Amino acid sequence: MSKNLGVTVLLDFYGVMLTAKQRDMVELYYNEDLSLAEIAEHTGITRQGVRDCIKRAEGKLVNYERKLKLVFRFYNIEEKVQEIYENAEEMIEFNKRFGANNLINTSAVKIKELASEIIEEV
Amino acid sequence: MSKNLGVTVLLDFYGVMLTAKQRDMVELYYNEDLSLAEIAEHTGITRQGVRDCIKRAEGKLVNYERKLKLVFRFYNIEEKVQEIYENAEEMIEFNKRFGANNLINTSAVKIKELASEIIEEV
Repeated sequence: MSKNLGVTVLLDFYGVMLTAKQRDMVELYYNEDLSLAEIAEHTGITRQGVRDCIKRAEGKLVNYERKLKLVFRFYNIEEKVQEIYENAEEMIEFNKRFGANNLINTSAVKIKELASEIIEEV
Repeated sequence: MSKNLGVTVLLDFYGVMLTAKQRDMVELYYNEDLSLAEIAEHTGITRQGVRDCIKRAEGKLVNYERKLKLVFRFYNIEEKVQEIYENAEEMIEFNKRFGANNLINTSAVKIKELASEIIEEV
Protein backbone atom coordinates (compact mmCIF):
# COMPACT_ATOMS: atom_id res chain seq x y z
CA MET A 1 0.00 0.00 0.00
CA SER A 2 1.26 3.51 -0.73
CA LYS A 3 1.44 6.07 2.06
CA ASN A 4 -1.30 8.66 1.83
CA LEU A 5 0.10 11.87 3.25
CA GLY A 6 -3.34 13.33 3.89
CA VAL A 7 -3.58 10.83 6.73
CA THR A 8 -1.09 12.87 8.79
CA VAL A 9 -3.47 15.82 8.75
CA LEU A 10 -6.49 13.64 9.57
CA LEU A 11 -4.49 12.11 12.42
CA ASP A 12 -3.93 15.57 13.90
CA PHE A 13 -7.65 16.22 13.99
CA TYR A 14 -9.17 12.81 14.68
CA GLY A 15 -6.31 10.75 16.15
CA VAL A 16 -7.99 11.11 19.54
CA MET A 17 -10.91 9.04 18.19
CA LEU A 18 -8.76 5.98 17.40
CA THR A 19 -7.88 3.22 19.85
CA ALA A 20 -4.40 3.52 21.41
CA LYS A 21 -3.22 0.60 19.29
CA GLN A 22 -4.52 2.11 16.04
CA ARG A 23 -3.04 5.50 16.89
CA ASP A 24 0.36 3.96 17.67
CA MET A 25 0.47 2.03 14.41
CA VAL A 26 -0.62 4.96 12.27
CA GLU A 27 1.89 7.25 13.99
CA LEU A 28 4.73 4.81 13.45
CA TYR A 29 3.77 4.40 9.82
CA TYR A 30 3.06 8.02 8.92
CA ASN A 31 4.85 10.24 11.42
CA GLU A 32 7.90 8.04 12.08
CA ASP A 33 7.85 6.72 8.51
CA LEU A 34 8.51 3.08 9.49
CA SER A 35 7.64 0.32 7.00
CA LEU A 36 4.93 -2.26 7.70
CA ALA A 37 7.68 -4.87 8.25
CA GLU A 38 9.47 -2.62 10.75
CA ILE A 39 6.27 -1.96 12.68
CA ALA A 40 5.51 -5.70 12.68
CA GLU A 41 8.94 -6.40 14.15
CA HIS A 42 8.63 -3.52 16.62
CA THR A 43 5.19 -4.57 17.92
CA GLY A 44 5.34 -8.36 17.57
CA ILE A 45 2.27 -8.45 15.28
CA THR A 46 2.32 -9.95 11.78
CA ARG A 47 2.90 -7.63 8.84
CA GLN A 48 -0.62 -8.42 7.64
CA GLY A 49 -1.98 -7.63 11.10
CA VAL A 50 -0.25 -4.24 11.07
CA ARG A 51 -1.54 -3.53 7.58
CA ASP A 52 -5.14 -4.41 8.54
CA CYS A 53 -4.95 -2.28 11.68
CA ILE A 54 -3.65 0.75 9.75
CA LYS A 55 -6.22 0.28 6.98
CA ARG A 56 -9.03 0.15 9.54
CA ALA A 57 -7.69 3.25 11.29
CA GLU A 58 -7.42 5.13 8.00
CA GLY A 59 -11.00 4.19 7.19
CA LYS A 60 -12.12 5.64 10.51
CA LEU A 61 -10.18 8.87 9.97
CA VAL A 62 -11.57 9.35 6.46
CA ASN A 63 -15.06 8.62 7.72
CA TYR A 64 -14.78 11.24 10.48
CA GLU A 65 -13.72 13.85 7.94
CA ARG A 66 -16.50 12.84 5.57
CA LYS A 67 -19.02 13.42 8.34
CA LEU A 68 -17.58 16.26 10.43
CA LYS A 69 -15.47 18.06 7.77
CA LEU A 70 -13.23 19.48 10.47
CA VAL A 71 -10.11 19.70 8.33
CA PHE A 72 -12.04 21.40 5.57
CA ARG A 73 -13.73 23.85 7.93
CA PHE A 74 -10.60 24.76 9.87
CA TYR A 75 -8.52 25.20 6.71
CA ASN A 76 -11.16 27.43 5.27
CA ILE A 77 -11.10 29.59 8.40
CA GLU A 78 -7.30 29.60 8.47
CA GLU A 79 -7.11 30.84 4.90
CA LYS A 80 -9.43 33.75 5.64
CA VAL A 81 -7.69 34.62 8.89
CA GLN A 82 -4.39 34.60 7.03
CA GLU A 83 -5.85 37.18 4.65
CA ILE A 84 -7.09 39.26 7.58
CA TYR A 85 -3.58 39.14 9.02
CA GLU A 86 -2.03 40.36 5.77
CA ASN A 87 -4.52 43.19 5.42
CA ALA A 88 -3.81 44.32 8.97
CA GLU A 89 -0.08 44.22 8.31
CA GLU A 90 -0.52 46.32 5.17
CA MET A 91 -2.48 48.91 7.13
CA ILE A 92 0.18 49.10 9.81
CA GLU A 93 2.90 49.61 7.19
CA PHE A 94 0.88 52.21 5.33
CA ASN A 95 -0.03 54.01 8.52
CA LYS A 96 3.62 54.10 9.59
CA ARG A 97 4.70 55.63 6.30
CA PHE A 98 1.93 58.18 5.80
CA GLY A 99 1.24 60.05 9.00
CA ALA A 100 0.89 57.48 11.73
CA ASN A 101 -2.54 57.56 13.28
CA ASN A 102 -2.88 56.05 16.74
CA LEU A 103 -6.37 54.66 16.57
CA ILE A 104 -5.79 53.06 13.18
CA ASN A 105 -2.54 51.58 14.42
CA THR A 106 -3.98 50.24 17.68
CA SER A 107 -6.89 48.57 15.89
CA ALA A 108 -4.70 47.08 13.18
CA VAL A 109 -2.20 45.74 15.74
CA LYS A 110 -5.07 44.23 17.75
CA ILE A 111 -6.47 42.56 14.61
CA LYS A 112 -3.04 41.17 13.76
CA GLU A 113 -2.67 39.76 17.29
CA LEU A 114 -6.09 38.11 17.25
CA ALA A 115 -5.45 36.66 13.79
CA SER A 116 -2.12 35.19 14.98
CA GLU A 117 -3.83 33.61 17.98
CA ILE A 118 -6.45 31.99 15.78
CA ILE A 119 -3.87 30.68 13.30
CA GLU A 120 -1.89 29.13 16.17
CA GLU A 121 -4.97 27.46 17.60
CA VAL A 122 -6.40 26.09 14.36
CA MET B 1 -34.79 13.71 33.41
CA SER B 2 -34.33 17.45 32.94
CA LYS B 3 -33.57 18.86 29.50
CA ASN B 4 -29.97 19.92 29.12
CA LEU B 5 -29.95 22.82 26.70
CA GLY B 6 -26.25 22.38 25.89
CA VAL B 7 -27.34 19.29 23.98
CA THR B 8 -28.83 21.47 21.22
CA VAL B 9 -25.41 22.95 20.53
CA LEU B 10 -23.71 19.55 20.63
CA LEU B 11 -26.37 18.25 18.25
CA ASP B 12 -25.47 20.98 15.75
CA PHE B 13 -21.85 19.87 15.74
CA TYR B 14 -22.03 16.11 16.24
CA GLY B 15 -25.59 15.17 15.26
CA VAL B 16 -24.19 13.70 12.06
CA MET B 17 -22.37 11.09 14.17
CA LEU B 18 -25.58 9.67 15.70
CA THR B 19 -27.74 6.97 14.15
CA ALA B 20 -30.83 8.26 12.32
CA LYS B 21 -33.02 6.95 15.16
CA GLN B 22 -30.96 8.65 17.86
CA ARG B 23 -30.88 11.91 15.93
CA ASP B 24 -34.65 11.85 15.40
CA MET B 25 -35.36 11.25 19.09
CA VAL B 26 -32.95 13.91 20.29
CA GLU B 27 -34.32 16.42 17.79
CA LEU B 28 -37.90 15.76 18.84
CA TYR B 29 -36.94 16.10 22.49
CA TYR B 30 -34.68 19.13 22.28
CA ASN B 31 -35.50 21.02 19.09
CA GLU B 32 -39.24 20.28 18.92
CA ASP B 33 -39.53 20.23 22.71
CA LEU B 34 -41.76 17.12 22.84
CA SER B 35 -42.01 15.17 26.10
CA LEU B 36 -40.76 11.59 26.43
CA ALA B 37 -44.39 10.41 26.51
CA GLU B 38 -45.21 12.33 23.32
CA ILE B 39 -42.17 10.90 21.51
CA ALA B 40 -43.13 7.41 22.71
CA GLU B 41 -46.60 7.85 21.28
CA HIS B 42 -45.25 9.41 18.08
CA THR B 43 -42.71 6.63 17.42
CA GLY B 44 -44.47 3.59 18.90
CA ILE B 45 -41.59 2.87 21.31
CA THR B 46 -42.04 2.69 25.09
CA ARG B 47 -41.35 5.82 27.13
CA GLN B 48 -38.44 3.98 28.77
CA GLY B 49 -37.13 3.02 25.34
CA VAL B 50 -37.19 6.65 24.21
CA ARG B 51 -35.50 7.74 27.40
CA ASP B 52 -32.72 5.14 27.02
CA CYS B 53 -32.17 6.08 23.39
CA ILE B 54 -31.89 9.81 24.18
CA LYS B 55 -29.60 9.13 27.17
CA ARG B 56 -27.30 7.03 24.97
CA ALA B 57 -27.27 9.69 22.26
CA GLU B 58 -26.48 12.41 24.79
CA GLY B 59 -23.63 10.30 26.11
CA LYS B 60 -22.21 10.02 22.59
CA LEU B 61 -22.51 13.78 21.97
CA VAL B 62 -20.81 14.65 25.25
CA ASN B 63 -18.08 12.12 24.55
CA TYR B 64 -17.39 13.62 21.11
CA GLU B 65 -17.02 17.06 22.64
CA ARG B 66 -14.80 15.72 25.41
CA LYS B 67 -12.49 14.27 22.78
CA LEU B 68 -12.69 16.65 19.81
CA LYS B 69 -13.59 19.90 21.64
CA LEU B 70 -15.19 21.28 18.48
CA VAL B 71 -17.72 23.49 20.22
CA PHE B 72 -15.04 24.91 22.48
CA ARG B 73 -12.63 25.51 19.60
CA PHE B 74 -15.17 27.08 17.25
CA TYR B 75 -16.60 29.33 19.96
CA ASN B 76 -13.13 30.47 20.86
CA ILE B 77 -12.47 31.38 17.22
CA GLU B 78 -15.85 33.04 16.86
CA GLU B 79 -15.21 35.27 19.87
CA LYS B 80 -11.90 36.46 18.43
CA VAL B 81 -13.30 36.99 14.95
CA GLN B 82 -16.10 39.02 16.49
CA GLU B 83 -13.47 41.25 18.09
CA ILE B 84 -11.65 41.56 14.74
CA TYR B 85 -14.94 42.59 13.16
CA GLU B 86 -15.54 45.29 15.76
CA ASN B 87 -12.01 46.66 15.40
CA ALA B 88 -12.40 46.84 11.63
CA GLU B 89 -15.71 48.63 12.02
CA GLU B 90 -14.15 51.15 14.38
CA MET B 91 -11.38 51.85 11.88
CA ILE B 92 -13.86 52.38 9.07
CA GLU B 93 -15.86 54.83 11.18
CA PHE B 94 -12.76 56.68 12.32
CA ASN B 95 -11.38 56.80 8.80
CA LYS B 96 -14.64 58.21 7.51
CA ARG B 97 -14.68 60.97 10.08
CA PHE B 98 -11.03 62.02 10.00
CA GLY B 99 -9.79 62.30 6.44
CA ALA B 100 -10.86 59.15 4.63
CA ASN B 101 -7.88 57.22 3.38
CA ASN B 102 -8.53 54.76 0.60
CA LEU B 103 -6.03 52.05 1.42
CA ILE B 104 -7.01 52.01 5.09
CA ASN B 105 -10.65 51.87 4.13
CA THR B 106 -10.22 49.09 1.55
CA SER B 107 -8.25 46.93 3.99
CA ALA B 108 -10.68 47.50 6.85
CA VAL B 109 -13.70 46.70 4.65
CA LYS B 110 -11.96 43.53 3.41
CA ILE B 111 -11.23 42.46 7.00
CA LYS B 112 -14.86 43.09 7.98
CA GLU B 113 -16.07 41.00 5.04
CA LEU B 114 -13.78 38.09 5.84
CA ALA B 115 -14.73 38.21 9.52
CA SER B 116 -18.44 38.09 8.58
CA GLU B 117 -17.86 35.09 6.34
CA ILE B 118 -16.07 33.23 9.13
CA ILE B 119 -18.77 34.03 11.69
CA GLU B 120 -21.44 32.74 9.28
CA GLU B 121 -19.56 29.52 8.66
CA VAL B 122 -18.66 28.70 12.28
